[in-house]
Amino acid sequence: LYASPSTSQIHDLLLDLCRCRHFILGKELTMASVLGGCHSLGPLGIEMKKNIISEWWNMVALNREQVLPIQTLLRWPPQPELVPQPLLRMCPDNKYESSSRVGPVTVPDKHQGQHIVLRQDLLQGALSHYIACLELVNRKLPFGISEVGTCFHTTQDGPDNNLHHTRTGERTAASLCWFSSAKTTTVWHDYWLRHRLLWWRRFAHIPSGFSSSEHQDTEGAKTFVINYDFPWGKEPVETLCMMDDSVLAQVHPGADTKLHGREGRKSVVPHLVWLNCDLDRGLLVYLSDALSLRGKEPRRAVLKIHPSLAPMKVAVDLGKGPAVDLRLVCQGLLSEMRGSGISVWPGYLDTVQTPMEQLFTKYDEMGIMFTVLVSDVTLESGLLQLRNRDTTIKETLHISKLRSFLTQYISAANKL
Amino acid sequence: LYASPSTSQIHDLLLDLCRCRHFILGKELTMASVLGGCHSLGPLGIEMKKNIISEWWNMVALNREQVLPIQTLLRWPPQPELVPQPLLRMCPDNKYESSSRVGPVTVPDKHQGQHIVLRQDLLQGALSHYIACLELVNRKLPFGISEVGTCFHTTQDGPDNNLHHTRTGERTAASLCWFSSAKTTTVWHDYWLRHRLLWWRRFAHIPSGFSSSEHQDTEGAKTFVINYDFPWGKEPVETLCMMDDSVLAQVHPGADTKLHGREGRKSVVPHLVWLNCDLDRGLLVYLSDALSLRGKEPRRAVLKIHPSLAPMKVAVDLGKGPAVDLRLVCQGLLSEMRGSGISVWPGYLDTVQTPMEQLFTKYDEMGIMFTVLVSDVTLESGLLQLRNRDTTIKETLHISKLRSFLTQYISAANKL
Repeated sequence: LYASPSTSQIHDLLLDLCRCRHFILGKELTMASVLGGCHSLGPLGIEMKKNIISEWWNMVALNREQVLPIQTLLRWPPQPELVPQPLLRMCPDNKYESSSRVGPVTVPDKHQGQHIVLRQDLLQGALSHYIACLELVNRKLPFGISEVGTCFHTTQDGPDNNLHHTRTGERTAASLCWFSSAKTTTVWHDYWLRHRLLWWRRFAHIPSGFSSSEHQDTEGAKTFVINYDFPWGKEPVETLCMMDDSVLAQVHPGADTKLHGREGRKSVVPHLVWLNCDLDRGLLVYLSDALSLRGKEPRRAVLKIHPSLAPMKVAVDLGKGPAVDLRLVCQGLLSEMRGSGISVWPGYLDTVQTPMEQLFTKYDEMGIMFTVLVSDVTLESGLLQLRNRDTTIKETLHISKLRSFLTQYISAANKL
Repeated sequence: LYASPSTSQIHDLLLDLCRCRHFILGKELTMASVLGGCHSLGPLGIEMKKNIISEWWNMVALNREQVLPIQTLLRWPPQPELVPQPLLRMCPDNKYESSSRVGPVTVPDKHQGQHIVLRQDLLQGALSHYIACLELVNRKLPFGISEVGTCFHTTQDGPDNNLHHTRTGERTAASLCWFSSAKTTTVWHDYWLRHRLLWWRRFAHIPSGFSSSEHQDTEGAKTFVINYDFPWGKEPVETLCMMDDSVLAQVHPGADTKLHGREGRKSVVPHLVWLNCDLDRGLLVYLSDALSLRGKEPRRAVLKIHPSLAPMKVAVDLGKGPAVDLRLVCQGLLSEMRGSGISVWPGYLDTVQTPMEQLFTKYDEMGIMFTVLVSDVTLESGLLQLRNRDTTIKETLHISKLRSFLTQYISAANKL
């Protein structure tokens, strides 16, 4: 599908689509500013990111033993000397960041006589609350500490505009620190790398777009990076690294016995595997993967987003018939679907008449999986028209079957 | 229940409980630092806050027409002059903040030659993306823009320690900007005030703890504040205010026609009602409301958290019997429950023997609604023991009935 248009056309098309369907909000958006995290998310973008977060959480915690979610402060402690500098060496994340992100980023500043440093990752927070979490699991290893939250970095306004001024970018990171005994860390590391790659590929049309690479710094520390092959080149989406027991000792000086966990009969200071995933980039990945072109010139764009991630599962719209009565039916459908956790786009609220084909084009660009038309036929016989985004086929379905049809469709896609 | 211990005892008890059961994380916690937003959230705190956010979202959007969620940047635009100062006058939120928060707060600072200003509320973000959201709903009024996210403020380390130094506090705010024609704004304002009060009271044992008050500034602008009566006094948890069409014109100078929405046959620049809710304080409110004391001296603390908000619905533990086999049953239960969205505490993972009564005390303090015991009886007949947090009564239930029992219990409590 990507064969015919050039890379820069795909590039522009994706950005245009994100902008005009309000996945992404902001003025003067460029691919560089979006990769750099200088944009806001619109309604569709945030719904899709919510779905990605929820799938991340399912993977991390659903069938797993103990994973404790926490939420730490966005600014680091008032005393910046408490942030151990060697940690930066051990988390070589930033070195493998895309070119649009430069250097480890904090915002060291003075306000009423004190420093404010904004966090650049979620590792420090997890490590500093390790002792409390260890108590909560009664010292039993292995266990994990997870957090999803905003991190900050400085970013350069890419080569696009040659301004070369830096600004602060934001991203939503998802982090898991997995603590286990030294003996088992390598096994866990391989386990997580395999699972994370499987997870990324699971929601993609082109699973081979994801690859992993290994990086070793001058002192021998290894980092694994999961990359995605965007039309304009590879960008990292997640890093995994192993760290030994010196990390915890560094963050908690003098607390040696409090750091000990139990694995089997042994009491040890655990090593850890750190998974650091960039969810805003994940959103871009799946939007880019979902973009496909349909029909003859001018070809129409469709966002074939995976059913689990699609921000809106169904749009409810009016067909022919008495508008007041049909709206009541639509309202009932909306409540029923939302009540079962199915996101609905209430197209029926719009009182401006739009030709059906134009509506379908719009919904395809929004990545909405199904369009439901309520018409006078529905009032007579309870039958709805249901149009599929991916096949463009229209089916007829009884109104009482819609919810179970959608639920089954989504859960079937999830099991593939 | 609150009658016998003194206010300061309740005060200490609540803080101790939050700390030792890791609802809240951090060193040197005081009630002032927690009210000021200088703490992190532990596993139970974050689960409970997630539930509060989810209920907030249900109230705001579930049966409502168009509410568009967005996610904006945490720092305000690089040019602080773009933040209209008069907005601060019109959003008199901060004036009615608790004494632990002083003044409107931004962190204006220089980093590589530019200002970084962290947001203090979510109003600016909603207003600045108004035009994009209006397009998305095809200009149809009324509609809402909602956001849940971190905001920053400066806080004073209260009178407790007399240090009188300020620091930066964080809170999770939930904001809804509801845009409608001038004619209907007052009606909508009353509607939202009534609904918000009902919502707050719905999850509380003592609904009368919430009250609303009206404030008028010198220029006649009115703000409604919803307060909660903590053992140590009233604290605001949410503010509502009305703003006229000048606000949008200010944020989007020269964009007059782009601001127009349709209500019925008219095209107007909407007025708005702004709901600004503090979810971190909401968490404290429901923890304080849930705290009750049981039995004779020494009385034991129980967190009787509302079923919809309880961070863990059920703990699964081992009774007598072959541990290896019983753990397999527990694991099966864990997957089944979590798969249906019921949060489970996997007590069975702990390999240290704890007397049952001590376990119940711990789970009561964690606010876990039910404790399930899997024992050799379960292996023989499929029967579980189920202990209720609020009644302390132990029942016997077949393992196949557990999920539907819990789902019904929670949804019944939700409908009360």
